[in-house]
Amino acid sequence: MAGSKTNQESSRVWHKTQLRVPLFEVDLGQAVYHGNYFHLFELGREAFLRDLGYPYRRFMDQQLHLAIVEATCSYRRPLHYDEMIEIHTGVKWWRRRSLALSQAIYRSEGEDGWVLCTKVTLNMVCVRFAGQATILPIEFVDILKRSVGDEEATDIETSSNNYNRG
Amino acid sequence: MAGSKTNQESSRVWHKTQLRVPLFEVDLGQAVYHGNYFHLFELGREAFLRDLGYPYRRFMDQQLHLAIVEATCSYRRPLHYDEMIEIHTGVKWWRRRSLALSQAIYRSEGEDGWVLCTKVTLNMVCVRFAGQATILPIEFVDILKRSVGDEEATDIETSSNNYNRG
Amino acid sequence: MAGSKTNQESSRVWHKTQLRVPLFEVDLGQAVYHGNYFHLFELGREAFLRDLGYPYRRFMDQQLHLAIVEATCSYRRPLHYDEMIEIHTGVKWWRRRSLALSQAIYRSEGEDGWVLCTKVTLNMVCVRFAGQATILPIEFVDILKRSVGDEEATDIETSSNNYNRG
Amino acid sequence: MAGSKTNQESSRVWHKTQLRVPLFEVDLGQAVYHGNYFHLFELGREAFLRDLGYPYRRFMDQQLHLAIVEATCSYRRPLHYDEMIEIHTGVKWWRRRSLALSQAIYRSEGEDGWVLCTKVTLNMVCVRFAGQATILPIEFVDILKRSVGDEEATDIETSSNNYNRG
Repeated sequence: MAGSKTNQESSRVWHKTQLRVPLFEVDLGQAVYHGNYFHLFELGREAFLRDLGYPYRRFMDQQLHLAIVEATCSYRRPLHYDEMIEIHTGVKWWRRRSLALSQAIYRSEGEDGWVLCTKVTLNMVCVRFAGQATILPIEFVDILKRSVGDEEATDIETSSNNYNRG
Repeated sequence: MAGSKTNQESSRVWHKTQLRVPLFEVDLGQAVYHGNYFHLFELGREAFLRDLGYPYRRFMDQQLHLAIVEATCSYRRPLHYDEMIEIHTGVKWWRRRSLALSQAIYRSEGEDGWVLCTKVTLNMVCVRFAGQATILPIEFVDILKRSVGDEEATDIETSSNNYNRG
Repeated sequence: MAGSKTNQESSRVWHKTQLRVPLFEVDLGQAVYHGNYFHLFELGREAFLRDLGYPYRRFMDQQLHLAIVEATCSYRRPLHYDEMIEIHTGVKWWRRRSLALSQAIYRSEGEDGWVLCTKVTLNMVCVRFAGQATILPIEFVDILKRSVGDEEATDIETSSNNYNRG
Repeated sequence: MAGSKTNQESSRVWHKTQLRVPLFEVDLGQAVYHGNYFHLFELGREAFLRDLGYPYRRFMDQQLHLAIVEATCSYRRPLHYDEMIEIHTGVKWWRRRSLALSQAIYRSEGEDGWVLCTKVTLNMVCVRFAGQATILPIEFVDILKRSVGDEEATDIETSSNNYNRG
């Protein structure tokens, strides 16, 4: 498990976290189990929100969850044990009570840069612990506006499938 | 964990498995963790293939996997610990190398029947353990033709959100 | 996933649940991940408590948990995908606030009976949701007394490593 | 998820890794699920072996696993979502084909230092992918001798339950 950072160069909106694929996420097919990619995406979101200045813990301290209501996941290339990966997280859009994130996992190919392996779009609704939908915290929305801009953020579709650092 | 059966009455194509939501699938929000619904769907697929007469084990004995390449999951209502659920599994379509299943999880409301909680569409490709895509086993396709029909199976969309047994 | 039953023949105290090893519990070593045996043991305990007449849900309805404070697990033989297993659960001892269970997983060897694969002893303390230890529910203790007897139950050590049904 | 380091000051044998408790490890009781502590211990072992100069990947490249045959885990205090923890890993003893590690998880109490929450002893046997026990790789044993010493390493029992950094 390694550090995380926001990437200033390539895009305002993309946050990046690097880590190695843990053994316990891999199934008998030698690749990450399809349901366990959501663990990796979650680690990326946690780091994204923390670096944004509004850690997920603050939602919970207000008795709020960001409940996932729709997930569309595309598994393009398998991830294997111990591979170095980079999880990209960006805001797709938000409304009063809801938020959509795009996330992608790239695998390090060493000198050859990074290759896109998995992509997800997550639609989330802000809900109270008791269950009802509610508005996103005002301070969180202010941070989104400052960080991402008022307009809808660029979709991950516009991000290329492979990229080199150089 | 309870038994499974194929349902002859309501539709040729829908297989049903009943079980209770295990405690270890539930997260701190008191509902099943979004990535763990894939465990429940998998239990449904396992029972579906077994009852179809072609258990997943037979794919693996031929060094084959049905690799999931796309998953679209809609979380409509949360599932909680110990709730009695019914997992519906149906074939959406198949081609030479690929197969799409629709699955849905209904929660028992006792006398009031069952309510739709979670839906997924899974696109799968038949792959060798070594990784290359390959054709679906002929005998499996023959079973699909006999059980589901040559035409594309009815999408889960046409299934109502709630139903009563009576 | 298959049904469960209490075994009257071999011992008063042993409850048995049968199921097949789910794919998602197996890791890249082709055997159940060492931390996931606790899922299987939990399914056994759930069935045990339900058949005893005091499902775990009743603890939770009283804002109680049986928190595990000590686990000693012996992994003798690996469990593989789709193997038919039988989970044995018995009460080792109980006190005012605590309870110890012995559990074991046997794998079907077909005609040759069952072979012991995994054993665990779990020491549990009854705790309120808020965290403090408290006494076990009186009705639960009464059921234990009727079912298991006042004396300490026979340890799983006295159960043979292999057994035949006949 | 944060960095890892070997600690030179307090003991030759203890490796330390820090990270935050991920949300997906926490169950409906608001604490880490008892079987999921093995994920955290595994992250600690991975970092330990990497820093030792013999990453677990090298075992696998030789078609070897360190199979866990016995685990004794003591859950003293619950771990909660987002808590900063430190995983300590030390060698307890090794023989020709087997190895025992002691691991402990401490929770940060801020200014008050760290408090011991969970302890485990893991007995492992070196096995070939095909299943038979075999000797530990010679180079790995050489590293153990240089790092830990020929004698048995200090047991975690001698480590105090709480400690302050200052």
